[in-house]
Parts: sequence; C-alpha cells; structure tokens
Amino acid sequence: MGEAALIALLSGGVGGSRLAAGLYELLGEELVVIVNTADDEVVYGLHISPDVDTVLYALSGIGDWERGWGIAGDTFRCNEALGRLGRENWFRIGDADLATNLLRTELLSSGMRLSDVTELIARKLGIRCRVIPMTDSRVKTTVFTSEGPMSFQEYFVKRRAEPEVLRITVERSPDEEAAPGVIEALSRSEAVIVAPSNPILSVRPILETRGVLDAVRSSGAVKVAVSPIVGGRALRGPADKLMKAFGMEPSAYGVAKYYSELFGLDGMVIDRVDADLARRIESELDVKVLVTDTLMTDRTRAVRLASEVLRFARSLR
Amino acid sequence: MGEAALIALLSGGVGGSRLAAGLYELLGEELVVIVNTADDEVVYGLHISPDVDTVLYALSGIGDWERGWGIAGDTFRCNEALGRLGRENWFRIGDADLATNLLRTELLSSGMRLSDVTELIARKLGIRCRVIPMTDSRVKTTVFTSEGPMSFQEYFVKRRAEPEVLRITVERSPDEEAAPGVIEALSRSEAVIVAPSNPILSVRPILETRGVLDAVRSSGAVKVAVSPIVGGRALRGPADKLMKAFGMEPSAYGVAKYYSELFGLDGMVIDRVDADLARRIESELDVKVLVTDTLMTDRTRAVRLASEVLRFARSLR
Repeated sequence: MGEAALIALLSGGVGGSRLAAGLYELLGEELVVIVNTADDEVVYGLHISPDVDTVLYALSGIGDWERGWGIAGDTFRCNEALGRLGRENWFRIGDADLATNLLRTELLSSGMRLSDVTELIARKLGIRCRVIPMTDSRVKTTVFTSEGPMSFQEYFVKRRAEPEVLRITVERSPDEEAAPGVIEALSRSEAVIVAPSNPILSVRPILETRGVLDAVRSSGAVKVAVSPIVGGRALRGPADKLMKAFGMEPSAYGVAKYYSELFGLDGMVIDRVDADLARRIESELDVKVLVTDTLMTDRTRAVRLASEVLRFARSLR
Repeated sequence: MGEAALIALLSGGVGGSRLAAGLYELLGEELVVIVNTADDEVVYGLHISPDVDTVLYALSGIGDWERGWGIAGDTFRCNEALGRLGRENWFRIGDADLATNLLRTELLSSGMRLSDVTELIARKLGIRCRVIPMTDSRVKTTVFTSEGPMSFQEYFVKRRAEPEVLRITVERSPDEEAAPGVIEALSRSEAVIVAPSNPILSVRPILETRGVLDAVRSSGAVKVAVSPIVGGRALRGPADKLMKAFGMEPSAYGVAKYYSELFGLDGMVIDRVDADLARRIESELDVKVLVTDTLMTDRTRAVRLASEVLRFARSLR
C-alpha cells in the first residue's frame, strides 16, 4: 500500500456500508474499512459474515441499497426450497448471495483466514480498497433477553430485535488478535471515522478486539464519528433501545459521549434535526460538531455526506 | 412397514431414477429403492449425493426428467455467482437443488446418518416408499485415466467421461456397513430389480457394500435386471466404454453375463433392438429374457416398462 494517506472507517452493516460506499467513491484505495464480525454466525452450515458482505456489496455496487443487505435483484429460490424441506428459513440469503457464503465457508474450512477470504472476494468483486474483518477469530454474540438467551441473528432477524435485552455477551477466543492490517491501518491513518453503526452491537466489538482500542487511542489520527441516532431514534435496528437499556442517553449526544470517553473523540457529525445538541456536545464533551443532513437514502447522498465528513475531519487536524 | 410384499430396486442415477418413478407409480410403499452413493463427493463444501437426489426428485415428481438431474425449472444464480467469484463452477447445482444439499450437509455435520437424512428429505418431498443410500459411510471413487487420477465428478461431469479409463478405485471405510434396512429389504423382497444403471460405476458399488452381494445371492427373491446398454451403446454416460475397458462385452448380453456370474440372474430385460441377443442370453447364461421397448423418454413409458418388468419378474417365481 506504500505510504499513501489512509482513512480508516470502523463499520457495521447498513449505515456503515453506505458511508463506506460514499468514502470509497472519493478516496479509492486510500480507504480502509474495518468491519465488525460479532454478528457472524453459522447458518444452514454456512459461515455468514453479514456486515462484511454488506460492505463488500455496497462498495462493489451490487448491493441492495434500500434493503441494506444482500445483492440487488437477487432471488430466494434456495431459501424457499429450504422452507419446503421443513428447515426453519427465517434467515434469508439470496441465491447469488449464497455463492459468497458458500465460497467463504469452503475457504475457511480449507484453513484460509477470514481476512484473506474477504480480500479474495473483494478483489473478485472489483473493489480496490481494503476491507478487513476486525479479527480472524470466531466471535460469538449472545443476546440475553426477557425471553431467554438467543444468538445475535435470532434476536436481530428472527425476533426483529423486539425482545427486551437484559445483557449481551461477546465470546471471544483467548488467543484472538486483530486481523492483519487492522492495527497498522489505525496507527497510520490521518483520520479514523466511526460509521453511523450501532455503537453497542457493531462498533464496540471492533473496539474490544485486542489492540484496537489502544491503537485508536494512541493514533495521531483525527477521530470523527457519525451519529446513527437521529432525533433520538436509530435509523435502523435497535441502537436507541439498546443504548437506553445500557444506561446511555439514546441521542447523538449519548453516542458522542460514549466514544469520547472510550478513545477521545475529536469531531461528531449529527443530523440537522439534532442541531440543538451541538452546543451541549461541544461544551460538555469538548468535541467539535458538524451539523448536516446525515440520511444516506441513495448513493449520491452518501457521497455528499462522505465528502462533508472528510472535509470536517481534515479541518480538525 | 409390516409384512407387505416388497420389491427392491438397485439404482444409480438417471436410468435408475426413471425406472424407480415407474415402479413407484405401480407399487407405492411396496417399493424400496437402494441407491448408489459411490459418486457422492464434497463440492463447494457441500455433501452431494447425485444418485440419491436424482431418485428423490424423480419419485416426488419435481425432477427434470429429460436432463436426468436436478429440479425441473430450477435456476442457477448461485452457480453463476460462484463463477463470478472465480470459483470453478463446472459442477452445476440449481438454486432449489442447493437447498437439498445444504440441508443434507448441515444434518450430516450435526451427526445424523445419510440414511436418516435421506428419509427425512424423502418424507418432506411427499415420497411414501423407502429410498435408502447403500451405506452411511463415505465412499470415494477415484478414476485413474490416461490424463491422471480424478474424482468421479471430475471425470464424469468436468471431463464428460472422455478420458480413457485405466482403472477405478472405490475407497471404503473398513467399518462400513450397509445402511439400515438394506439387507432386510433384499432378504424380504419378492423381487430384486437391477435398474438400467451403469453396471461398473453404479451397480457394482452397491453390490460391493458389505453384506449386500451375499444378501442378494441368498435372497429368495426373483432377480431381474434391465439393460442400460441398447444396441451396444449406453443410453447415457460411459457404461459401454467402461465395460469394454474392463474386458466385458458392451452389450445387453455382457450385462446379463456380469450379473449372472455375480449373483445368479433369473431374468434380463433387453430392448427390441437387441432382440437377436435373447437366444444367446437364454441358452448360454440360462437367464430368461423379456424383449420390450426399454426407452423411458417420459413418465408414461417408464410406468409401462415398470409394469412389464414386474409382470416378467412375477412370471419367473
């Protein structure tokens, strides 16, 4: 990669993948996306990496932008046939999407590392920047709810994040390390951007990967986060509910406070509807704020937001 | 299953599945199909059982009759996507067909036996008769050709059975046993019918499964075979070439001789175009012959052939 300037993005699924697509358009191979794998699971015997795939599909342009997962125009014949065979099939994987999961599972079984598999798939999809899963070790998230413990996908997909969450455990291998390139990218980047992803379910697992939080803290990079909470509500998923359950204020302020305490945030990007929070974030947390339109409902808006986030980050150096 | 009369069919893929469908129409749950698994392999990380699936699909009516494998009207989006990801994809599995392979692989990984998986899938497909893989152990066929050794599917599908075959090895587990129900079915049946399948690649592996040849030999059943060779040529696949390579006469006579020597054949069903072989089979091998139209180009013809084969077998008691 030589010594070109790097921008590192910490990303979960939908929101992260959209900002990644926007940044990629502007930065090309200067972007490094470090992706959460705490929601990886084995489904239908396949190793699924939902956030990694969502990012890969968004970057390559084959993703379903609106739905936020899978490949645009994909069919679900295999998934439907599984149902006819009596297999629970609430976890939907499209037919073309299956190929990614089959290949990943096959290569992992052959001993290849998840990061190498991801790189291979990224290259085949024509992606020029690096997309790195946070770790090559298996990470297992269990969500303990008022209805009992369940796997992440069971909570998130089957039960649509409806059960009340009591606690979340993330089981990690004792010899876990960050995937090759993660720590280096964080140390070398001129900016570390935290995507508008779920702070608890998506970003925290990245930061808790061995060495990552230290690397972010000690990096000379400008640290900027984009709020996934707009008007007190998560754009997607249960981030607001979970933040509340975990004693955090479910707002852009709460997100800024969380990251600020974790690793020292330089800048926070919040939506216009939260403009009234800007002063509080700046004065109480000593974090600069950019107020803008953060909704990435299409690629054009994602590129515009990415461009503003980059300009903002560079202004903070 | 009580003590109802049974008819056992030893079956490979295409030809066997068609005769199975014909017999099933007439016999319902009195039919037991014992299926070759020597061409089972792991492809894309999935445990494929091509002959078992072809039989299941033919019996349930969802199979592609003309093509002889897979599900009628299936799409190949996953297979095509694998190709785009740079994965060799000459082994084609349709999208709905993938569900069968995913479920089988998942259940086998969980410790279930192939015979139980097969029964479960058969039930889900609405099949009322028993379909039993010859064994629950892994069997691995290697074809040694003039171009080097290759797996069965590499020889059969990728190389279209074109390379010259020098020898074939079938690796079997030392503690292999016939799948539950196989020996019992053979012992109890009033007739054992050998389908028009490849004698070397499909039927021999069934007979070489521990206990099977003895069970066929000692069974009081009438033993009837349908020739897969018509006019000196295999209807599908390389049976004729292989028989020649293995020093057998590639004809209905050669097939009759092979089974006659192996377990004592009572009756042989040959096509009208081979009518002139009837006398030779009857006089030299002491095997009764039924000459009829053996081409099962559609389900109606399969049922008619099945009906003639049954009548013929019963006449030999």
